[in-house]
Order: sequence, then structure tokens, then C-alpha cells
Amino acid sequence: MSAVATEAGIGSKVQVTYRPSGTTVRVPTGTTLFHAAHWAGLPIESTCGGRGTCGKCAVRIVEGDAEVTPADHRHLAERLDDGWRLSCQAEVRSETVCDVPALMRAPKAATMGVGRLVLLEPNVQQLLLELPPPDLDDHRSHHRRLLDALEIEGLEVIVPPALLPTIARVAEEGRVATATVVGDHLVAIAPGDESARMFGVSFDIGTTTVVATLVDLTAGATAAIASALNGQAPFGADVIARMGHAMSGDDAIAELRDAILATVNGLIDQVCGAAGVEGHEILEAVVVGNATMLHLLLGVDPRSIALSPFVATFLEPQDLSAADAGFAIEPLGRVALFPSIGAYVGADIVGDVVATGLAREPELRLLVDVGTNGEIVVGNRDRVVATSAPAGPAFEGGQILHGMRATEGAIEGVVLERGEIELQVIGGEGVAPRGICGSGLIDVVAQLRLAGLLLENGILRSRDEAVAEGHPLAGRLIVLGEGIRAFELAEGVVLTQLDVRELQSAKGAIATGIEVAMDALGVRTADLEQVLLAGSFGSYIAPQSARVVGLVPPVPVDRITAVGNTASEGAKMALLSFREREVAFELPGWIEYVELSGAEDFNDRFIRNLAFPALESVR
Amino acid sequence: MSAVATEAGIGSKVQVTYRPSGTTVRVPTGTTLFHAAHWAGLPIESTCGGRGTCGKCAVRIVEGDAEVTPADHRHLAERLDDGWRLSCQAEVRSETVCDVPALMRAPKAATMGVGRLVLLEPNVQQLLLELPPPDLDDHRSHHRRLLDALEIEGLEVIVPPALLPTIARVAEEGRVATATVVGDHLVAIAPGDESARMFGVSFDIGTTTVVATLVDLTAGATAAIASALNGQAPFGADVIARMGHAMSGDDAIAELRDAILATVNGLIDQVCGAAGVEGHEILEAVVVGNATMLHLLLGVDPRSIALSPFVATFLEPQDLSAADAGFAIEPLGRVALFPSIGAYVGADIVGDVVATGLAREPELRLLVDVGTNGEIVVGNRDRVVATSAPAGPAFEGGQILHGMRATEGAIEGVVLERGEIELQVIGGEGVAPRGICGSGLIDVVAQLRLAGLLLENGILRSRDEAVAEGHPLAGRLIVLGEGIRAFELAEGVVLTQLDVRELQSAKGAIATGIEVAMDALGVRTADLEQVLLAGSFGSYIAPQSARVVGLVPPVPVDRITAVGNTASEGAKMALLSFREREVAFELPGWIEYVELSGAEDFNDRFIRNLAFPALESVR
Repeated sequence: MSAVATEAGIGSKVQVTYRPSGTTVRVPTGTTLFHAAHWAGLPIESTCGGRGTCGKCAVRIVEGDAEVTPADHRHLAERLDDGWRLSCQAEVRSETVCDVPALMRAPKAATMGVGRLVLLEPNVQQLLLELPPPDLDDHRSHHRRLLDALEIEGLEVIVPPALLPTIARVAEEGRVATATVVGDHLVAIAPGDESARMFGVSFDIGTTTVVATLVDLTAGATAAIASALNGQAPFGADVIARMGHAMSGDDAIAELRDAILATVNGLIDQVCGAAGVEGHEILEAVVVGNATMLHLLLGVDPRSIALSPFVATFLEPQDLSAADAGFAIEPLGRVALFPSIGAYVGADIVGDVVATGLAREPELRLLVDVGTNGEIVVGNRDRVVATSAPAGPAFEGGQILHGMRATEGAIEGVVLERGEIELQVIGGEGVAPRGICGSGLIDVVAQLRLAGLLLENGILRSRDEAVAEGHPLAGRLIVLGEGIRAFELAEGVVLTQLDVRELQSAKGAIATGIEVAMDALGVRTADLEQVLLAGSFGSYIAPQSARVVGLVPPVPVDRITAVGNTASEGAKMALLSFREREVAFELPGWIEYVELSGAEDFNDRFIRNLAFPALESVR
Repeated sequence: MSAVATEAGIGSKVQVTYRPSGTTVRVPTGTTLFHAAHWAGLPIESTCGGRGTCGKCAVRIVEGDAEVTPADHRHLAERLDDGWRLSCQAEVRSETVCDVPALMRAPKAATMGVGRLVLLEPNVQQLLLELPPPDLDDHRSHHRRLLDALEIEGLEVIVPPALLPTIARVAEEGRVATATVVGDHLVAIAPGDESARMFGVSFDIGTTTVVATLVDLTAGATAAIASALNGQAPFGADVIARMGHAMSGDDAIAELRDAILATVNGLIDQVCGAAGVEGHEILEAVVVGNATMLHLLLGVDPRSIALSPFVATFLEPQDLSAADAGFAIEPLGRVALFPSIGAYVGADIVGDVVATGLAREPELRLLVDVGTNGEIVVGNRDRVVATSAPAGPAFEGGQILHGMRATEGAIEGVVLERGEIELQVIGGEGVAPRGICGSGLIDVVAQLRLAGLLLENGILRSRDEAVAEGHPLAGRLIVLGEGIRAFELAEGVVLTQLDVRELQSAKGAIATGIEVAMDALGVRTADLEQVLLAGSFGSYIAPQSARVVGLVPPVPVDRITAVGNTASEGAKMALLSFREREVAFELPGWIEYVELSGAEDFNDRFIRNLAFPALESVR
């Protein structure tokens, strides 16, 4: 991340034009031409990843100027006067136009995330190195010989001293060796031309579920996927409960760390088994997840996230050896944690933004990740605002009389039409409904609204009224013991007036977050070109229902898309493209974080958003 | 190390003049003004150690030019046009004159090594940091808050993820914290103003003996010294035997590593006990030693050092966490290994050069470290040449009939005068002599030469001849069973003709090394202003005897000085001054290494050097 972009946030921007494509992009001053090009979706060749060592990313500056750096001197000597500069070193200070040479080789690319075309350039590389044997005239150490051979490939790497014993052995064997490099760390060296398989693994560590994706880095393809319940579940179902346990002492934090590591390593076992891969063939892990989960993964007390003013101990990306991280992959391999945007807009959301390209495309889009906490990101390549809204446990079935998780027997969808009630129950036809999960809750409420049984202010109509009107579903309106109105979905499964209130509160918080974020960005519903429902829960929400209950703004329903687990997809993209990773790691510096609890009129807005939208606006 | 100095070795040099002092120094192009100044013994203020982050090392360039770097822009903005540049970023490309501002504070200095004045600027720093508490308008993570506070102090540091749990705790405690930084690694953070004690430990790991020096980094003083036999001794007395054991397999290397770590950690215990220090108060260890010992310390097979073409697996400096190195100090503390010059001119010799200032002073000096292997360094601040000569075990008592180590009962000095024989025996007067140690061997042979009992060609005179001449010591010339002549030093302790041959061979190898190195440098005996006998063994050699046997060139005896354990002293200086350390780490790039076995006429020279110098040239 360029220092300027970090420090000045979204400071003043200048335009860069790349020829011959004519692509333009506006970036903060101080951004390098290399990064700006990548930001614009324009690949500039480089093998060193923008470290100024390979000399391959030179461009010719036609307008504007860039200072000559020592790296320019080393690589471009006689071409400096013609305006050639290493794009990875040239910081943009004024409007700039530059020529980009055609790529020397046809890059390998794949479509990932939400329709994103990504060049396959994994952070993990394997290189066949010539190691000229020592003689009495060439006394370089084996270590130096290796560094020199890597430098010829344009790489300046860190050699962990723990690899020196292996280097000694490799040097005995001959003049060719295969080096495996992760980022700027040498992680393995083997004698001969041993182009081995290379795998990476991505993790999306959710409070409830952990998803592991094993990726074949050579083929650029997913080799196996597995998911498991977060092993911390016994210590509390949601983030708040998990934090509560963490606060009970250092042992509790260690306990939580051990629990999530057991889950992580269990999943590594599982994906390796499924794909016929050995743990040591996995050279890198990339992790996304909410900030609390990432804190616990590193054994860090998350209490400051729970208590006002709600700051995290770290939001920044972290890079550890696998041994230090406790991941059962190649011990010298690396574990990279995505950065978070804020204490409540975590690294998983950064994954969402990467996978959807939200911060890189011209279209204005709103992304909502619904859960106990609703994360909201709105913007386009010019500007992006993020916030987080405390939705409470309703979407996970908490505080709902017959609420339950999305497991067998849960009502996950409802259709009320022509006086009929049609239930979708997890497990399929023969399974008796046992309760209502989050997506079912949204569906039931939306259908009750559409059926005219639930008023704009959230009040369930009385049975008497409905009977008087001859409503065909009137018979399902009942009154519970305490005089509480309810709607009977199935035998023993009802939705109560209180449940509706809980849903209003949850969707009201998220709608308020969306409103505040859109206001901060200065856009209106009509400007939204797409609404993305992200997160595993998001995939199950019926777009029309989300619109009817007012969870999302009333855009035409075909603009609402469930995008699935984009957080995992973003992590996978970072495994397959070191440039995507660089962009990801810069995102927190670009995205404006709005603190919802800091908004003065939050309560007023929230109360306004408790009501459901008028039917004529959403039908 | 500047890239140019490394790659071009001793390339073309240009002159730099510092005003107002008028100090001049000639350095290779590409050296920074900051390094060149330090090389010239002129301190330029800096807290970041030349990383371009603190902005304190600015100088004004009066003649010559230096490009403007991004760091200059950040720190010097409006002063650039006046010629101000950060001296740590400005690489010298032509004759340069610059103004150095007066130091802002009076630096603390101490005399170390061989009369070297060194500014106390340990690599370990403790900083009191202001950590403004977070609020709803300042959402920086605790980690970022800490990095920002360190940046205000001019430091860009690596925060190991393992410290994040502590950072979370410290953040709970208040707005002030004490950070401990080693180089560019944060190693500890504590709440409040807890200016704790800071210690470092230096190690000189010899094949025979390991010396540990505990240094109080605040006071700049030695707190305790301890030495112990290298715990690898049971696996072989000398380097060759040790290598032989190492070659017996991976387990053997692990065994040798465990043995030296046990010695190291035993010594840490010992110096801590003596000074009342806890292991975790030691934040850094600096290690010198021969290349083989450093290989075994990191568990690296040293066999390539033993076999032609004699290359090391690593000569470069190494930097490890204490936990990875297996040193029982603060686990996040650092262990730094000095670089070596060649496979047989190790990091201990780099320590010698630092402590004596040999590569920085104008005087032409020769440094000889006598042992199984004799290391030779000759030169001054303009140019330095080093080589190594295989002396064999004679100086350690090996291959000598009554040879022994320098322990109780060893004859360490002899005077033959007026027909009397006067022995110096380790242990003092009442101790009966049991054998001869290395320094005693040199003394006996020198005295026999001076007494006229040993010929220039190394032949002991016969008893008959001596009796015929009426030599008062004739009675001590005896003949052993196999017809071998010998000189009786004491009852049961003799020096044989074969022992003299062994000494001739040992001193001949070293004399040849000196000759080759001096030839490479283009200097003659008359040019030598000082001859330094280094290493623990060097301290015991009588300068006059070294000259009489021809171990060193025939300079006036008052120019021969035993300088003691300068290797340890060099390591200690690196603990107390990060600039001395930087110079040390650059030395292998400056010093020309001559491979003795590669010298075509080595054998001819060696044979010529077997004879003793004519008495008239050395008496």
C-alpha cells in the first residue's frame, strides 16, 4: 500500500491514462503507476510483484513526470531520458499519460468471483534455478549463489535460516534446483528439476461456519471444498457470546484459539483427503473472516471490539509462518490474514468487495451481508462507503419463538397464494416443519404483508377482522395464551406478533445502515444499479421478500442478486493472483468507514425504518 | 550494505569531504553519505539507523549531486532546493562535499576494542509512547495506533503477530506504553512508563572455548563474562574432527547443534546469575565464531567447508528470533550472526577487524589469529586483504610428543640464559611441568634458536657438538630411543626434532599466508606499522618469540602487540552501536579474500618459509 494512500485516506486524486488502450483511472496522489494500472484492470508485466527488482514493469511517461529512483537507474539507465520508468516505483503526482508495452507473454486468466477476469499469478511460485558449482575462483556461499540465481529471476527473497540445512544438502546434489517462493519468502528448495505440485488453501472463518477451499495453484482450479461448524460453538453461539467467553480470562482465549485451529486443521485434513494432497504440498493459506474471529485465531483478546468505542486490536493484514500460525500445512509456508475495514466490517467483507469488483467497476452497487451483524458496502470505483448495523440474532433464529438455524425441519420459504400456504422445508417433502430459519422468517413476513395480513406498522391483523373480510387465511390467525397474536404456519409452528417486532428491529437496523451509507456517499435508491446479497445467509434470501420487508431499498427486483459466499471467493482470488491481493490489502485505505453508532440521528432513522415499506412501492 | 559495494567489491572510489570538520574519506561509488561518514568515524545523527524514516540525518550537499528520493520528499520538502538530502539515502556518485549540522545532543561514547571510541547507540531501544485512547472519531486499531506512535519516533518496525495479544492488553491499561525495539523488530510492549533494564549478550563460539559477555545496554558496560569449553568437544577436538562427526549423518548435526546450544544456554545462565539478570531481560544476542561453528549452531552441515573447493553454505549475516535460534533469552528477542569473509576466515575475524579498527585507520596493520587455522588480515582504510593458512594442530599441542592444551602443568614460557633454564608453568611455582602448550612451544623453539642449539634449517644440534663447544645447556640435548634428537625441558618433558618439524610446518603455513596476503596488497615488512596477535592463543605468544621463529614478519618487536579476544570485543561493540554493526556487516564486501590453496606458487613459498629467519635479522 502506498504510504500516501494510507495516510491521506481518499486524498486528492489525479487522472492517469494508459496508452494504447486509452484506459483511464483516477487515483490518490502517491499511488504508483503499477498499482493504478492494476486498479484500472490493466495488467502490467512484473515478476517481482512491484518491488522494483525485476525491471519488467517499465512504462514510458508521455505527460506528467515521475522522479528517477535508484531502481530506475539500475534497470533503465540509458532509457531514462526517453521517459521510461519502472511503473512500480513511479508515484503519480499530477495528471499522467504513459505508454504500456504489449505483454511479452500471453497471460493465463480465469473468471472468478462475480464475473471477474483474473490473471493467474499466484503468490506462490516455483522456479528452476541454475546453481553454477563453486570452484576455487568462485567462493560465493551456497546461500549467496542461491540469492544470485533468484535475483536473475527478478526475485529478492527472505531466506529463513531454518532452510540453510536444506540449502547445504541441495548444494551437494548438483547444479540445478527447484525453489518455491511465497511472496518474498523462500519456503522450500529441492535438488534437481522437481516441479512439484503447488496448492493453496483459503479459509472463510465465520462465527458459525468455517469454509475451506483447496486450490491447485498450477491449474488455477479449486481442488476441494469443505465446511464445518466453527469449533468454538460450544463456547457461545454468536460473536457476542464468544467475546463474553473470551473475557473470562487468558485461558479462555487460548481455549478459543485451540478450538478454531482444530477446526481449521480438521478441514485441511478433509480437503487434502478429498483431493489426494499432502499437507506439506499446501504452501500458503489466505484467511478471511470477521475481525473477532481473526483476533481469536491469533489468540488476541477481542474485548475492545465488544466495548465502546469499538476498536479492534488489529485491522491490518497479518503475515505469519504456518508454524507460528498453527496451520498444518508446510511449516515454512505462509498464512496471510486479509485486512479488515473496521471492527465490525471485517476481512470477509474485503473478500466480498474483491470478488464482486465493487470498488473497481463504474456501476454503483450496494452489497449487504446479512447476519447478527449486517455489513453494508456501497459505491463504485470512484468512492466506496462501508458501515455495519447491529441486526441482532433474529436472522439466525434467535429471539424468535419458533426460530431455529437453517437445518433439517426449518421452514426456509413460504408462499401464501389464493388462500393456500405452501412451505419449503429444509430436508425436502416428507420432512415435518419444526421451526423457522432466517430466510423463512423474511419470507413469511413478506408474504403476510403481500397477503394483507400484516400492516405497514407491523401489526398482525386480528382474526376477527380477517374473518369479517373473508380472508381465506383468516383461520390461521390465532391468539396465544398471553393475548399475543400469531400466524400458524404449520402444526406447532407459529409466527408471533413479537417475532414480527424482532424482524422489524433487525431489518430496521440494516435499512438504517444502508440509508446512512448511501447518504454519506450522496446517492439515492434510483442510482443503485445492483444490490448484492452476500454471505451464506444472503444466498437463501428471496430477493423479492427482502424488498417487501424493506431489508434492501426498493430497486427493481431483477437488480437484487444473491452472490453466495463471495468472501471465500475473494480469498481464493488472492491465492491465485498476487495483484488481486495487493488491491485487497489496499482496500481498507480506500473505503470510507462510517460508524453507525456515531451517527447523531441514528435513533430517529432507526425508528423510521421499523415500519415496512408501503405495498405499492414494492409489490 | 549498499548494492554497489556488494556487487562491485572494491570498485572505483570517490572522495567525500564533510564540513565543518574537513574529514575526508574515499568510498566506492554507490555508498551512502551516511555510511561513508560513519566509515570516516564521523557520527551523523539518526534514530532509524539509515532507513530513511526518521529524517534526522539530513546534510547539505555543497559540491557533487545526489538524486532526490521519495524519502527526501517526505522529510525535506522545501529544503531540497538548497541541496539538503537525507544522508542515508544519498548515494555518492562523484566527488562530494557536504555540510553536516552539529549534533543535536551530546552523544554518549565509550572506548572499546583496541582504543576505539564508539558512540553508545545500541540496536536495542526502549521508547515511551503516547497512545491516544480511541474514541468514536478515531477508529485506528491498537496495532495501527502503536505503529503511528513509533513512526513519530522515526521508527518503522515489524510487529510480530505473536505480540498482538500483548498489544490488546496494553491498550486496556492506558495512554502510555513502553516499547522495546531490536533493530526493526518490536520485541516487547508494556503498559505505562516501565523503562526496564536492557541487556544484550555477545558470544564468541570457538571450536574449543565459548565466551559469553553480558552487556548492560543502558550503561554501555560489561555486566558479566563467562567462558566454557565448547560442549561439542566430546565429538572431536578440532574443527576437522567436528566436521568428520557432522558428516556421519543428520542426527550427528542435530547432536552437535544441541551440544553447542547447551553450552550457550549454560553460559547465559551463568552470566545472568553473576549479574542478577533474568533471561528475558536479554533482548539481543550477537554471535561471532568460525564459519563451521556458526554452521553447526544453525544445524547446517559444514561438509562443504571441509571439501574442495571449500565453500560455506552461508557467509552472510543471519537474523533469527531467539526462539528459532534456541537461545534462552527473551523469545521474541533477536539473535544476530556476524557475517564471515570466507569459509576459513570467519565471523570471529570480522569481530577482530571491527574491534581493532583495522579497516578504518590510516595505519597499515597486520592481524594474525593463530590456531589450527591461522587467519590473516592485512591493510588499512584504503584496502584490506584476508586469507587463511592451514597451520595444523601443533599450536594446540597436537602432533607434539609432550604437547598439551594450556591447562595446569603446561609449560607456557621458557627462558634459556647463561646456561640456566627458566620455565613458566601454568598453575605457578609449585606446579610440576607436565607438557608444553602452544605458546610454550614457540618460546622453547625461539630460545633454542637464540641459544644457538637449533639451526636455521630446523636441525637440533647434536649433544656431541654442543659439548665440544662447551655449551652450558649441552647436557639437555639427548637422543631418544629411535635415534631422534631432543631437548630436555624438565623431567619427563622433552622437545623432539619431530616437534620442531611440526612447528616449522605450522609457522611456515602462517608465514606463507602472510606473505601471499602482503603481496596481494603490494606491501612489504617495512611498511607494516603494527602486527596484532589476536585470538585467545595470540595473547599468550611472546612477541619476540613469534618474530624469532618467523611466525610474523621481522618488524621491530615493539610493533607486535597481543590484542586479546578482539572477536568478542567486536561482537560487544555491535551490541552497543548499531552503526558499528552496519560497518561490520559490510566488511565482507570490502575485504578481498585470497584463497591460499589457489595460489599457484603456494608449495614453493611454503617450503621457503619452513626455515627459521637468520638470527641477525630478528635478534
